[in-house]
Amino acid sequence: MQTAIECFPCFLRQTIIALKQLYGMDDTHGGIIRDILSIMQEADTSKPPAYTTTYIHRLIRDRLAQDPFRDIKHRYNAIALELYPALKEKIKESRDPLWTAARLAIAGNVIDFGIFTSIDIEGSMSRALKEHIAVDDYPSFKNAVADAKGLLYLFDNAGEIVFDRLLIEEFVSLGKKVTAVVKGAPVLNDVTFEDAAQAGITGLCEIIDNGSDAVGTILEWTSPEFRREFEAAELVISKGQGNFETLEGNGKKTYFLFQSKCDVVSKELGLSPGSMLLKKS
Amino acid sequence: MQTAIECFPCFLRQTIIALKQLYGMDDTHGGIIRDILSIMQEADTSKPPAYTTTYIHRLIRDRLAQDPFRDIKHRYNAIALELYPALKEKIKESRDPLWTAARLAIAGNVIDFGIFTSIDIEGSMSRALKEHIAVDDYPSFKNAVADAKGLLYLFDNAGEIVFDRLLIEEFVSLGKKVTAVVKGAPVLNDVTFEDAAQAGITGLCEIIDNGSDAVGTILEWTSPEFRREFEAAELVISKGQGNFETLEGNGKKTYFLFQSKCDVVSKELGLSPGSMLLKKS
Repeated sequence: MQTAIECFPCFLRQTIIALKQLYGMDDTHGGIIRDILSIMQEADTSKPPAYTTTYIHRLIRDRLAQDPFRDIKHRYNAIALELYPALKEKIKESRDPLWTAARLAIAGNVIDFGIFTSIDIEGSMSRALKEHIAVDDYPSFKNAVADAKGLLYLFDNAGEIVFDRLLIEEFVSLGKKVTAVVKGAPVLNDVTFEDAAQAGITGLCEIIDNGSDAVGTILEWTSPEFRREFEAAELVISKGQGNFETLEGNGKKTYFLFQSKCDVVSKELGLSPGSMLLKKS
Repeated sequence: MQTAIECFPCFLRQTIIALKQLYGMDDTHGGIIRDILSIMQEADTSKPPAYTTTYIHRLIRDRLAQDPFRDIKHRYNAIALELYPALKEKIKESRDPLWTAARLAIAGNVIDFGIFTSIDIEGSMSRALKEHIAVDDYPSFKNAVADAKGLLYLFDNAGEIVFDRLLIEEFVSLGKKVTAVVKGAPVLNDVTFEDAAQAGITGLCEIIDNGSDAVGTILEWTSPEFRREFEAAELVISKGQGNFETLEGNGKKTYFLFQSKCDVVSKELGLSPGSMLLKKS
């Protein structure tokens, strides 16, 4: 997808969310804002907004000399881990554990501090477990999983990763070889090795990083090692809107599990914001 | 008030609202956006956001070579005029016509295309006519009106001006000399002479313009003639958030009638967004 005019106010909204992780309602960041505006002036609108947001979050981390999302990532991993036993039980007891785990993985995508400032996890789970979601390619997804020996699982956010763990556990119990992918460096509240460890993924499956600090998965900025894995993958499970923005139409057999959070992506999909999707590429 | 960090995404949101008045969902305005970003980089955050929004709307009108709000202003004047007879009747029948007219004038302030993209006039009226609003200096307002021979009435938006007409009619029926003030040139959906004529204000009271195309009333940018009127005024009735932003604390005896529409102004006032105010300076 391309960068829309509506992405520009959102670039600044994301900047403010990031700055406020460390400084509350402080207004002393005029200098950073001016540099963010310079980045926005250079935005290549023929590319997905993830390019510009990547530059923006790099600048913020550089100026603050720290990752503003570190604490909130840790906190949401912990919150989600408290939910884990009940969710595991719900999956076990369900008629189709893969369906329930996939839906919960979509529910977990509500945890996103790039876009939201408050999170309703319970509400998201209850919506996800209703029969109807906006795009539901589950039958095809189930067949694709059955047919594949292995799959590449692209994480999105901290907290959400605990929901991903439940789905990966279903894949593993079905005998699939799962390779899970974290970011090569912190960006937003996206998952790194540290989060994978906290969420209890270590040991469950192979974990690699993509060698990149980009929002979503900007293939040209990932490491050659990751690109080899990506090329070789039989099936890709892609979590989150950022990965959808950057990977849609790339030709790889992919299932996108996410919530359509912003007006621009929702409009491109012909859906209302907040829609849930299990979408075949 | 000063410009807050949260004003920056809003500057762009306002830009998009203005551009879309003419072009719908067109995304071909990259050039304008880049120039707006330059204006934002020069923003003097020690001043109210109205300074920056004034520069922004000047640039938009200049680039489009027309006023993007002209049609929607005309339309909302017409919509409000249809409501006029019923509102006039409601005021006549009420126990305190000045109270009812003042509250309806606050209700009319919901018509603001600088901030909103859709408008709920009926809902706004029903909220305004409830006993409680967030700030209610009506007893003091009533006394101030009773004591004054004349007053200066600063308009805000088209459409809203029909609600202002009802309040001005109350002032006139109380024997007050009213001088009403329109903008010196189009800006946003603010009232000009053309709107005053459409709304039926002509002949009801003296109408002057403030010699300025600024958002709100930036005194240093108004004409010397307007400033003389302002200095000489016994009592000022100020409509809208823009006038509040730019005139609060100026020392003049003023009653601000408006809805607090954005997070920044609401926070400064200690209120939730959407609060209604009849506030003494």
